[in-house]
Amino acid sequence: MAVYTEVSFEDLEAFLADYALGAPQSFKGIAEGVENSNYYLQTERGSFILTLYEKRVHAGDLPFFLGLLEHLAAHGISCPVPVRSSKGAQSALLNNRPAALLTFLNGLSLRRPEAAHCAAAGAALAALHEAGKDFAPTRPNALGHQGWRELAAQCAPRAETVQTDLRALIETTLTEVTADWPHDLPSGVIHADLFPDNVLFMNGEVSGLIDFYFACNDAYAYDLAVMLNAWCFEPDGAYNVTKSKSLIAAYRRKRALSPAEIEALPVLARGAALRFLLTRLYDWLNHDPTALVRPKDPRDFSKRLRFHRNVRNAAEYGL
Amino acid sequence: MAVYTEVSFEDLEAFLADYALGAPQSFKGIAEGVENSNYYLQTERGSFILTLYEKRVHAGDLPFFLGLLEHLAAHGISCPVPVRSSKGAQSALLNNRPAALLTFLNGLSLRRPEAAHCAAAGAALAALHEAGKDFAPTRPNALGHQGWRELAAQCAPRAETVQTDLRALIETTLTEVTADWPHDLPSGVIHADLFPDNVLFMNGEVSGLIDFYFACNDAYAYDLAVMLNAWCFEPDGAYNVTKSKSLIAAYRRKRALSPAEIEALPVLARGAALRFLLTRLYDWLNHDPTALVRPKDPRDFSKRLRFHRNVRNAAEYGL
Repeated sequence: MAVYTEVSFEDLEAFLADYALGAPQSFKGIAEGVENSNYYLQTERGSFILTLYEKRVHAGDLPFFLGLLEHLAAHGISCPVPVRSSKGAQSALLNNRPAALLTFLNGLSLRRPEAAHCAAAGAALAALHEAGKDFAPTRPNALGHQGWRELAAQCAPRAETVQTDLRALIETTLTEVTADWPHDLPSGVIHADLFPDNVLFMNGEVSGLIDFYFACNDAYAYDLAVMLNAWCFEPDGAYNVTKSKSLIAAYRRKRALSPAEIEALPVLARGAALRFLLTRLYDWLNHDPTALVRPKDPRDFSKRLRFHRNVRNAAEYGL
Repeated sequence: MAVYTEVSFEDLEAFLADYALGAPQSFKGIAEGVENSNYYLQTERGSFILTLYEKRVHAGDLPFFLGLLEHLAAHGISCPVPVRSSKGAQSALLNNRPAALLTFLNGLSLRRPEAAHCAAAGAALAALHEAGKDFAPTRPNALGHQGWRELAAQCAPRAETVQTDLRALIETTLTEVTADWPHDLPSGVIHADLFPDNVLFMNGEVSGLIDFYFACNDAYAYDLAVMLNAWCFEPDGAYNVTKSKSLIAAYRRKRALSPAEIEALPVLARGAALRFLLTRLYDWLNHDPTALVRPKDPRDFSKRLRFHRNVRNAAEYGL
């Protein structure tokens, strides 16, 4: 939630010389995105987001991310679209950072989505999966189950400083999830981070999906399991089965779930909870107190993980 | 440069119920203003800034600040205008903070203004002074010369940890400036913080003045002295007399300077440099490393102060 790299008017003017967007009319740093520096830009031609990619996004991944956004938009998904420069480039250097100009989407993200919003977001996820099917480039899931062991090894020794029994929870879950992890599920491009922050609404309808910087190739049902974690828990930690029922039903109306996907949902949900528990725990334990972001509390996800560990089959999610 | 108080869509919706602005279309925290939390808001009726006033702005001062903006706008100054609620209120509570909705101004602030921009900004300052003349409410300058002694006492003991001889520079200047401080100069409402950040430009013209939260009643020429400090030094610390000549000449075309104001300019410039040196030094020495803002380097202003201490008369500023 910060601007890491400052861009002056003069820097912006030089950058915009390569784009046919007319004169800038407004330019403000926005407090959005934990990973990058983002600016709201208004020019004679419309509204845009200028993103400078900081260290966590690798320049080598940009053709995948930006190409995916172009592909999805061409296939009917409302997402930010990279504006190409006069020379056809999707990104360029600005103040020594790779940078891209993306179209600005109207809409607001919800803090407390209702069941109807969960349904709309679930349908949007299925539409995203369908639209991404013929996108040729691939990117492995850097935060997929193969990466959790290393993260766990880095966090587990100090996990108890955050919460009693957290080390055991992580190690047991890791062992079980690794043993039970499903293979050969239908896979393709997934968002991998479709939290309510990343879904914009207008008048109760989804107006756009944003923040594709964890997008990768992985099991579609894993993306759904991320959403169960992100959309269906109440602030007090209770699982709202009405919300998950709505979300999954709306998803299935746009993309059918195979029996193997349904059967795998509980272990995928445990895995997704472990993934966010581990990355939040890592950021919590390795937080630089002078940084401009505050880390999120990992304990929300240890609570969610404990819930999923008691789920015996997908029916408990409302299927 | 941060959002201190988070406002969810649901909080916003409840807040907007008291305003006739239609449905929100976009809402983003913006990294602007060291003192407050600011959001960019777009609704069916236009673009706005929602400001939540954090601890440094006292709720009791809001009628002065917001009333001043209404008054200035009614007198031809392009500045943010508070949008009144359906009940006529200029501000309301949001998440336990006083909050106001202000119209959004197009334009961009410059990092490296040229002499022509300095002239445009100088003219805008004179127009502001003229437009504020019949504004009845008053507010003392909390960071005026009467307040410097206390700030100096809090900072001086540790000043040497920042720069050699800084304590002596502060104490000598304070003694001299206090002894020589002019009285009975023409006074009225001043901006008191008209740095390039707070002047928006479009196509080389001033499109708006922003951030009036240091506005107060004080000598008009002191406001001009603040601008000499803020607009006329090069990044290497050199004073650019072409810029100050342009700035002062453009100011004088809109508002005449009396002989007493001209004579006082060097001591006012020293005082203004001391004011920003002291507040930056205070913030530097008392910086909370977990805060979401990085303090500005006070040494820029010790250098500027040393320059002003060698100025013998206003002619050296290009008068």
